[in-house]
Amino acid sequence: MPFAKVLTGTQSTVPLPFKPTGLNGISERMIVSHHDNNYAGAVKNLNKVELELAQINSDTPGFVVSGLRQSELTFRNSKTLHEAYFANLGGDGKRSGAIEKALGEAYGTSTRWEEQFRATGNGLAGGSGWTILELELATGDLRTIWSGNHTQTLSTAVPLLVLDMYEHAYQMDFGAAAARYIDAFFANVNWDEVNRRLERALAAAKVLRG
Amino acid sequence: MPFAKVLTGTQSTVPLPFKPTGLNGISERMIVSHHDNNYAGAVKNLNKVELELAQINSDTPGFVVSGLRQSELTFRNSKTLHEAYFANLGGDGKRSGAIEKALGEAYGTSTRWEEQFRATGNGLAGGSGWTILELELATGDLRTIWSGNHTQTLSTAVPLLVLDMYEHAYQMDFGAAAARYIDAFFANVNWDEVNRRLERALAAAKVLRG
Amino acid sequence: MPFAKVLTGTQSTVPLPFKPTGLNGISERMIVSHHDNNYAGAVKNLNKVELELAQINSDTPGFVVSGLRQSELTFRNSKTLHEAYFANLGGDGKRSGAIEKALGEAYGTSTRWEEQFRATGNGLAGGSGWTILELELATGDLRTIWSGNHTQTLSTAVPLLVLDMYEHAYQMDFGAAAARYIDAFFANVNWDEVNRRLERALAAAKVLRG
Amino acid sequence: MPFAKVLTGTQSTVPLPFKPTGLNGISERMIVSHHDNNYAGAVKNLNKVELELAQINSDTPGFVVSGLRQSELTFRNSKTLHEAYFANLGGDGKRSGAIEKALGEAYGTSTRWEEQFRATGNGLAGGSGWTILELELATGDLRTIWSGNHTQTLSTAVPLLVLDMYEHAYQMDFGAAAARYIDAFFANVNWDEVNRRLERALAAAKVLRG
Repeated sequence: MPFAKVLTGTQSTVPLPFKPTGLNGISERMIVSHHDNNYAGAVKNLNKVELELAQINSDTPGFVVSGLRQSELTFRNSKTLHEAYFANLGGDGKRSGAIEKALGEAYGTSTRWEEQFRATGNGLAGGSGWTILELELATGDLRTIWSGNHTQTLSTAVPLLVLDMYEHAYQMDFGAAAARYIDAFFANVNWDEVNRRLERALAAAKVLRG
Repeated sequence: MPFAKVLTGTQSTVPLPFKPTGLNGISERMIVSHHDNNYAGAVKNLNKVELELAQINSDTPGFVVSGLRQSELTFRNSKTLHEAYFANLGGDGKRSGAIEKALGEAYGTSTRWEEQFRATGNGLAGGSGWTILELELATGDLRTIWSGNHTQTLSTAVPLLVLDMYEHAYQMDFGAAAARYIDAFFANVNWDEVNRRLERALAAAKVLRG
Repeated sequence: MPFAKVLTGTQSTVPLPFKPTGLNGISERMIVSHHDNNYAGAVKNLNKVELELAQINSDTPGFVVSGLRQSELTFRNSKTLHEAYFANLGGDGKRSGAIEKALGEAYGTSTRWEEQFRATGNGLAGGSGWTILELELATGDLRTIWSGNHTQTLSTAVPLLVLDMYEHAYQMDFGAAAARYIDAFFANVNWDEVNRRLERALAAAKVLRG
Repeated sequence: MPFAKVLTGTQSTVPLPFKPTGLNGISERMIVSHHDNNYAGAVKNLNKVELELAQINSDTPGFVVSGLRQSELTFRNSKTLHEAYFANLGGDGKRSGAIEKALGEAYGTSTRWEEQFRATGNGLAGGSGWTILELELATGDLRTIWSGNHTQTLSTAVPLLVLDMYEHAYQMDFGAAAARYIDAFFANVNWDEVNRRLERALAAAKVLRG
């Protein structure tokens, strides 16, 4: 199968994978604004940036290339992380299965992991960023990642659980009370989806390491 | 197989995978300093940061958590990207095989890709960062990534070709002449290694998408 | 007069310099949350960071020093910029006097400046940052500055008009409609305060240049 | 006197204010490359960016505005900080006068300040950034600032002593041995210039506070 052309400006949005009225303590107004404005806006911008990047060549000033490339990384990761964030919501928040066992093995107890994940999220309160549980493909480690903006993420890894800490993810419903938003996030996690991601990521890691 | 404990501070360094006197136009002094000081220093720091992070809990001030987590991301990605950078050097710079075909399909011609990759690298001259050809696992796209520091990278992707644009990668031999360093980099790329990475990354992407 | 001791952890907050119910189109709930949570939280954190920094010495690991210093810059600038932001609100939005003349001279027309300032603010929508009109002390230039987070600002300059583009400055009232927030900001600017700042900054610039 | 037009692309470079062969332990080759390539390159780029920015309006995509504005901040601060860095070199490194007394009052002893300043510089080894002693105009405080790149600096302040920690400032002569570069920096500081800056900055601070 041939490789897809890049920089075609044809990236599309994915609908919310749950009923927006169905979250527990996160309003339809906020989740729809988040999806339709922040996420969809990033995809729209990604497409514009790709078409600009398709034109760069060895005569383009370095600062123009860097500006566009930084925007591309911003919007591309924003698309990826938002899609993973929305898709790991819509559940009942009850953690079980392989991920529960894995977190216990990696962090001592899964409760200890949750404490570290929440602390990382709370450290981002009042600003922008993400907190992400990632499977690192080269090592198989389960890392808990801090990211201060869309461009920052773990190399060579697959996100398993994604928490959006940009203020557009919580200010409308929770004001500055980021810790209460993190409570609501955990009450809505779809752990079945996280378990699906873990299973596939483990298989991919095995293949990648050869 | 149980998951490995995280934050144990036991990450180790990998030796240079080629004879340091054998590069074409890149001095032994520079590549050894790069490996022994910058790369090995990052691994040493990663281990220290991991042991600090193992102690954080819900009472740790948010700025301490954020500071340590940002350092963890810095040093962890520095380790990953440096290892990939060193391992894609030591070759003869002759591009062929699956990657040559793939770049042609994705970018029109592989020459056009190289122009874009070089422009991205040149845009980073005089500062810090990376230029990386990545296989994006969820889409199979071959993206050319700009990164301004170790924390910035593409989500859910595997690096195929990594170019270090931190000034410690070239100042000693080339001074401010970053474009001449990029020439030397391309003359030393090990495209067999890149082809191996591509093959495995494609297999991993297939598994990940289910 | 002796210099004040630094890193004493004794920085204090300034009350809102206007009646929080008196803004036009910006709610009491939002401006009070902004002041009491985001701004006051930054000052509280600044004091904690200062006390940690007072302990660093040549044995402190570099990543700990960098983490604390980055936090210090974050919270110190957050304090400065928030105080300037609040103090340039509470007016009637009618621009006149020396600043009106100055903007016309520097930008062709003051309307042209406002277009550039608004475009810079709108470019920050959906993330974090500031847009700031600054008097550059060494040149006397009136620069319009983009800042992506608290650490980024113009060197050797005095802020004349400060627009907070962190999402906590507008999400609660305006959702993702950042452009409508910028309209509301301009309707509430206290241009008398901006004129006072300009006068003093010009005098300071004159003295600094000797 | 009318305000100068902004965004004219007419910024010029300042020659090295000392004989480049005259520094103690910092080579002519390195300081000239630093001045002629990194500093002069930033000024050249600043002029190009200014001319692009002069064209933006309400139809320009937000990411283009943000990219250009971030470049403007990068190159403008690079110009300011490099000029201050070069101008505080060329001395004999013997600290005395008002700055010696001021540092003692603010930091307990001036030796304690130097320990903090060096620790901040060393924390930046292997990457990019600046360490800056600044007089904060609104408070009169003598702050020691960490900056990870040209865009990061203290608001409403005047740099008194500027240490460039980008690797182009030391790799050519010192390799990765950043601490030895900091020794050489201190051996060449022109404290008379720092004292002149302090005197003017204090006068400016007094005027600014009214």
